[in-house]
Amino acid sequence: MRAVVYHGPGQKAWEEVPMPVIIDDTDAIVRVDATTICGTDLHILKGDVPAVTDGRILGHEAVGTVETIGTGVKNVKVGDRVLVSCVTACGACRYCRESSYGQCLGGGGWILGHKIDGTQAEYVRVPFADNSTYAVPDGVSDEQILMLADILPTGYEVGVLNGKVRPGDVVAVVGAGPIGLSAIMGARLYSPAHIIAIDLADSRLEAAKQFGADITINNGREDALAVVRELTGGLGADVAIEAVGVPDTFELATQLARPGGHIANIGVHGKPVTLHLEELWIRNITITTGLVDTYSTPTLLKLTQGHAIDAERFVTHHFTLDQFDEAYDVFARAADTGALKVVLTRS
Amino acid sequence: MRAVVYHGPGQKAWEEVPMPVIIDDTDAIVRVDATTICGTDLHILKGDVPAVTDGRILGHEAVGTVETIGTGVKNVKVGDRVLVSCVTACGACRYCRESSYGQCLGGGGWILGHKIDGTQAEYVRVPFADNSTYAVPDGVSDEQILMLADILPTGYEVGVLNGKVRPGDVVAVVGAGPIGLSAIMGARLYSPAHIIAIDLADSRLEAAKQFGADITINNGREDALAVVRELTGGLGADVAIEAVGVPDTFELATQLARPGGHIANIGVHGKPVTLHLEELWIRNITITTGLVDTYSTPTLLKLTQGHAIDAERFVTHHFTLDQFDEAYDVFARAADTGALKVVLTRS
Amino acid sequence: MRAVVYHGPGQKAWEEVPMPVIIDDTDAIVRVDATTICGTDLHILKGDVPAVTDGRILGHEAVGTVETIGTGVKNVKVGDRVLVSCVTACGACRYCRESSYGQCLGGGGWILGHKIDGTQAEYVRVPFADNSTYAVPDGVSDEQILMLADILPTGYEVGVLNGKVRPGDVVAVVGAGPIGLSAIMGARLYSPAHIIAIDLADSRLEAAKQFGADITINNGREDALAVVRELTGGLGADVAIEAVGVPDTFELATQLARPGGHIANIGVHGKPVTLHLEELWIRNITITTGLVDTYSTPTLLKLTQGHAIDAERFVTHHFTLDQFDEAYDVFARAADTGALKVVLTRS
Amino acid sequence: MRAVVYHGPGQKAWEEVPMPVIIDDTDAIVRVDATTICGTDLHILKGDVPAVTDGRILGHEAVGTVETIGTGVKNVKVGDRVLVSCVTACGACRYCRESSYGQCLGGGGWILGHKIDGTQAEYVRVPFADNSTYAVPDGVSDEQILMLADILPTGYEVGVLNGKVRPGDVVAVVGAGPIGLSAIMGARLYSPAHIIAIDLADSRLEAAKQFGADITINNGREDALAVVRELTGGLGADVAIEAVGVPDTFELATQLARPGGHIANIGVHGKPVTLHLEELWIRNITITTGLVDTYSTPTLLKLTQGHAIDAERFVTHHFTLDQFDEAYDVFARAADTGALKVVLTRS
Repeated sequence: MRAVVYHGPGQKAWEEVPMPVIIDDTDAIVRVDATTICGTDLHILKGDVPAVTDGRILGHEAVGTVETIGTGVKNVKVGDRVLVSCVTACGACRYCRESSYGQCLGGGGWILGHKIDGTQAEYVRVPFADNSTYAVPDGVSDEQILMLADILPTGYEVGVLNGKVRPGDVVAVVGAGPIGLSAIMGARLYSPAHIIAIDLADSRLEAAKQFGADITINNGREDALAVVRELTGGLGADVAIEAVGVPDTFELATQLARPGGHIANIGVHGKPVTLHLEELWIRNITITTGLVDTYSTPTLLKLTQGHAIDAERFVTHHFTLDQFDEAYDVFARAADTGALKVVLTRS
Repeated sequence: MRAVVYHGPGQKAWEEVPMPVIIDDTDAIVRVDATTICGTDLHILKGDVPAVTDGRILGHEAVGTVETIGTGVKNVKVGDRVLVSCVTACGACRYCRESSYGQCLGGGGWILGHKIDGTQAEYVRVPFADNSTYAVPDGVSDEQILMLADILPTGYEVGVLNGKVRPGDVVAVVGAGPIGLSAIMGARLYSPAHIIAIDLADSRLEAAKQFGADITINNGREDALAVVRELTGGLGADVAIEAVGVPDTFELATQLARPGGHIANIGVHGKPVTLHLEELWIRNITITTGLVDTYSTPTLLKLTQGHAIDAERFVTHHFTLDQFDEAYDVFARAADTGALKVVLTRS
Repeated sequence: MRAVVYHGPGQKAWEEVPMPVIIDDTDAIVRVDATTICGTDLHILKGDVPAVTDGRILGHEAVGTVETIGTGVKNVKVGDRVLVSCVTACGACRYCRESSYGQCLGGGGWILGHKIDGTQAEYVRVPFADNSTYAVPDGVSDEQILMLADILPTGYEVGVLNGKVRPGDVVAVVGAGPIGLSAIMGARLYSPAHIIAIDLADSRLEAAKQFGADITINNGREDALAVVRELTGGLGADVAIEAVGVPDTFELATQLARPGGHIANIGVHGKPVTLHLEELWIRNITITTGLVDTYSTPTLLKLTQGHAIDAERFVTHHFTLDQFDEAYDVFARAADTGALKVVLTRS
Repeated sequence: MRAVVYHGPGQKAWEEVPMPVIIDDTDAIVRVDATTICGTDLHILKGDVPAVTDGRILGHEAVGTVETIGTGVKNVKVGDRVLVSCVTACGACRYCRESSYGQCLGGGGWILGHKIDGTQAEYVRVPFADNSTYAVPDGVSDEQILMLADILPTGYEVGVLNGKVRPGDVVAVVGAGPIGLSAIMGARLYSPAHIIAIDLADSRLEAAKQFGADITINNGREDALAVVRELTGGLGADVAIEAVGVPDTFELATQLARPGGHIANIGVHGKPVTLHLEELWIRNITITTGLVDTYSTPTLLKLTQGHAIDAERFVTHHFTLDQFDEAYDVFARAADTGALKVVLTRS
C-alpha cells in the first residue's frame, strides 16, 4: 500500500510501504476512506516533535472501514464504518477509568502518526480498537465525521468545557485558525452572550463570524484588551481561550479574563511563557491546559448527526490520497489558500 | 484611643488617634478584644503595598464586641461578640451574589488596614457589618475565632477547595509557614492519603507534622520532585499548593502536580513567574489563584466549635495591645522566635 | 390607588386601596408599569394557599419605575426602571449567602402577593429592594423583562439547571403549559439533541414546537414511554422535567428518565405521589425539587438583551390595569383562549 | 470443588460442583481465599430476586488468587492476589465510559451470584477480569480488602458521594446495619460537624458510635425529627442517608433533610414509597438512588492501605468455607449474634 512517510525534518514522501498487520489482539486494521492533515503534522515536519522518527507514517485522523480485527476485539466488526480517533485508550488504566484517555498509561494516548504508524495511508493499524474507534451514525458523511477525529473534540473539551463556558458568558477566543474556530463552534452550544474572536488576519476573522463569533478584533490594528473591557464594564471576559500557542497570545488571554474568570489554553507551546502572578494572584483566575481526551466524542457524534454542529464547515479543499503532496502544500500555505481542513479520500 | 499607625516604609507607631465613628448606616464600631499580625502587614511595612498611605491604621483581623451600629445594620446588635473578617462585602454586587466577596465591586473586599483604617487598634469601624462580621458561637475562645479572620479561610478556600483535594489524594504543600500550615490543616478535613510538606526550615517542617503532614521534605537538602514522584509511581501529586509567593516555589509546585492535577496558588507574588507551557500544555493541569472570599467562614466556625479544627494550634505568643512593638518584632523574626501567630488582647 | 384584592376563595376585586408606604428602610415603592397573572394566582383564588388572607393584594411579577426608596437602599434610585422579582432576598442569611434566595430565612423568599401585598396594583412596596429588583437593560421592552419576574427563571433553574441538561442530551418535558414552555426555551440554551414535549392538548404541543421542542407526544393518544424508549435505544431520556404538578405526570417523568438520568420537578403539587423505589433504587436516578431562587436572573437578562431568549413569545394577550377582570378570565380559560401569559399595563 | 448452591427459596447447600472454566477470553478463574455473605444473599434465599435460579452459586464478594486467565486478559497475571468486586465492567459501553460500571450495558454490572455463578465457592470465574478485579496493595489483609468488594464502596458512593457530604455538614443516617455503618465510616472522611445514627436497636446504635457517629437516636423511643431539628436550629440535616429499604425509613429521611438538602437512598426497596411532594416541591431537595458503581474502589484501597479507613471493624465472625451453613445462620440472626460481616476463609 502507499502512505505518507516521514524521513526527517522537511522530508516526507507518498510511497510504497508494507500493509499493516495485527500485532496485539485488540488491534483492528482499518481501510482509510478519508483522512486529513493537522497543524501538528506541520510541526512534525519541521522537526519539532523528536519522538517522530524516520520511517514513521504520519496522520492521526481518519474515517474508514474495518478490514481485519484481532481476537480480543469485541465491539467492532469487519465491515464497520468507523471514526478513528486521534487518541487511543487502553480502557483499564487509572486515567482511562477517569475518561482521561489522552493521558493513558497503558500504551494509548496520542500515538498514531507519532509513536506508531498513522492514518495518512491506505490502511492503518488501530490499537485498542474497542475504545479508540466509534461507529459512524447514519445520515452523516465521511468528511463530517472526520472532523471529530481531533479538531472538534479538542476545541470543545480543551477550550469550551475546560473553560466552563456557560449561557450568558462573554467568551474571548485568541486565534481564529482551525482550533480557534472549533472552540467558537463548540462555545455556541452553551449560548454565550458574546463570542469575541481575536486574530491578526482579517480572513480568519471573517471565518470566525461564519463559525459563530459575533464580535471580531484584529489585534494588529485594535487594542483587544480595551475592546473587551469596554464591552464588559471594565471587568473582562468570563472565559478566555488561547488557540495559538505562543507567549504573546497566552499573556493576552490572561489579561482578557475577568476576576474569577477562566483561561483555557489549547495552543501547543514550544517555549515557556511569563505568567504575571504579581497581578493575577489576587484575581481568582483558573488556568487550564490539556491534550484532548476524546471523552466528548459520543456527544459530538450526536450533535453532528442532529445538525447542531455543522462539521463540514471546516472543509475547504478536497483531494485524493495520491495528491498528498499538493494537499500538504495547500494546507501549509493556509494564509494564501484559505485552507482550514483539507480532506483526502480514496480515488 | 490608641492604634498601630503606618507612617511610610519602616515606620509605624502605637499612638493616640481619634475614635472611629459611623460613616455609612451599614457600619458598626467594634471594640477590639483580640487581634493579630499578618504576613501582609510586614509587606505593607516594607512599602510593598502602595495603596496603604501615611496615617493608616493597620490590621485586618479581629474578634471584638459591637459598640455602636448604624441605622441600616439588621443582624448585628450592640454587645454582640463578633469575628471581624479580613474581607468585607457589600452583599449586592455581581461578585457578592456569587459569594466571591473578595472581589466585591460595591466598596468591600480587602479594605481593612489597607484602604481604610484597620483592626490593630482599640476600636475599629467595620463597613457592611451584616455581611462582614460573624457571631461567635458558644464554647470557643477569642483566640480560636481570631484564626478565622484570615489565615484559616485563606488556606482552606484558596488552597484546599481551589485545589479540589479529595479523599485518598496525595497533596504537596510548598511552604510550611502559617499559610502553608493552614492549608495542611484544611486538607486534613478531606482525608487525603498523604500530605507532604516542603520547606527549607526544619523547624517549620516539624510544625507541619503537628498540623497534619505525614511526609516532610527539606528541599534545601532533598530533591522534592524526586521524593514525590517516587511516592506516586512517577506521576506526581494530585494537588500541589503554593504557599510562599516566589517564582521558584511556584515552578516547583507546577512540576510536582501529576498530569490531570491541580496547582493552587495561595502565595502573594511580587514578580512574574515562568510557566513552562512547553511541558505543561499537554498535561491537563489546572492552576488557580485567589484572594480569600471568606465564603467558608460559617463552615469553619462550625468545625472549630466541634473541635474538628484545632485553631489554637497557630497561636505561639500572647501580648497585650500596648505591646504591639514587641509583638511585631517577635512575629517579624519568626525564624528565630518560632512565631506562627501572635495574639494581642486588651490588658 | 387601585389593586386586585383577594377576598377569600373565588372572590377578588379591582378596588381602591391605600398607597403603599415605606415600612423598612430597605424598601422601595415601585410604580407598576406592567404586570401579569401567574397560575399560582389561580390556585390562590381557589383557596389552595391559606397563607393568603382576605384583603391581600395579589401578584408577584412586575416591571416598574422606582417612586420612593428607604434610607437603607443603596443601589436603586428613584426613577430607575426595574424588574420586580417574585422572590425577595434579605441578602444576609445562610440561604441568601448561598444564592438560595427562595429559601431566605431573613424575611424574604416568595412573599409578594402571598404574605405581603403584591404587584397587581398601581404601586407596590418591594422589601429588600437592593436584592429584589434588577435594573432593566437598554433595548428590551417591559413585557420581555416581565417574563423574567418568575416564569423564565423558574423553568431555567428548577427545570434546566437542576436537571443538568447538557449538549447532546435527550430532554423530555412533561406538560407544555407556560412553565413547561419556559423549560423548553431554557433547555435550548444547552443544545440538547432532542427536546420532547408531552401533553394532552394538541394546541400546547403546537406551542411547544414554537418554543423549541423537536418532538411532541400527545399522551392521550400515544404511549410516551414507548416513544421515548424507541428514540433512545431503550434507555430513556437523560433529563425528564415535570411541569404539571399531579401524581400521574410525576410518575411518568420518573419512568421516562434513563438509568443515571435526572428528574427535575417544577410542578406545584397538592398531593403526595407514589415513588416506585422498588424499580428506581437500582437505576442511579436523581430527583430534584425547587422553588425558584432567581439567582439566574442576571444571566437571563443578558440573554434576553442579546435575543438568545425570545421572552416576548410568551405574551398572548394585552390589557390595561383596569381590565383585570377580563385578563383573569382570559388567563383562567387558557384551553379556550390559548393564553400563555397576559400582560397588563398602565393605560 | 465445593460451593454454596441455591436451590430455590429457602434452599441452599454447600455441595460439590464442577470447577469453573474460562468462557470468554477476558475471564479469569480466581481461587477464593476469603469471601463473605451480604444482606442481598438473604433476600435471594427468601426468593425476592427471581433472576437467581436453581443451581446458581451465590456470593458477589471475594479476595483471591488468580489461577488462570483468558487470552484477552492484559493487566492481571496468574498468581496475582486480587479483590473481586461485586460489579464487573465491560469497559467499553456508554455507562462504563462514564464510570457507571453498575449500569454496564455490555454484559457486566452486578452479575456474580446473580446472573452467573458467584464467589461463595472454592473458585470463581470473573468476567472482564481487567476491569473487575483490583490488585491488593501491600500491607493489608484479605479481610480488610474483602470489605471493599461491596459494602464500603456502596456506603461511600451511594450514600456519601451521592449525598454530597461536605466538611461541617450535619449528616443523618437512617439505619445502622452494615450498610449504614459503612456510610458513617465513609462520611467521616469529609469531616462533617455531626453524624447522627438512627435505628431501633440500641446494639446497632452502639456500633454506630464505634464507626464514627457522634449522636445516636433510638427512633423506637425518641422522635428523630425533633432531635435533628433541635440540633439544627429547626432546619434539618444537610444530608439524610437511607440505609434500610422500607417506606417508613425513606419517608423519615425525606423529613430529616433541610431545605436545599440531599437525601441519598442506599436501601434496596421491595415496595413503592410515598413521596410527600405537596410539602417537598418547594424545599429544593435532591433525592438520589443507586447501585454501587465501584468507581471509588481505587480510592478506598488507598485509604485502607493508609489506615484512614479501618475496614476490619466490620468483621465480627470468622469461619472456614466448609462452615457456610453456620456462617449463614449467624449472619441471618444478626440481632442476636451481633454479626456485621462474617468472613469465610480456606481452612
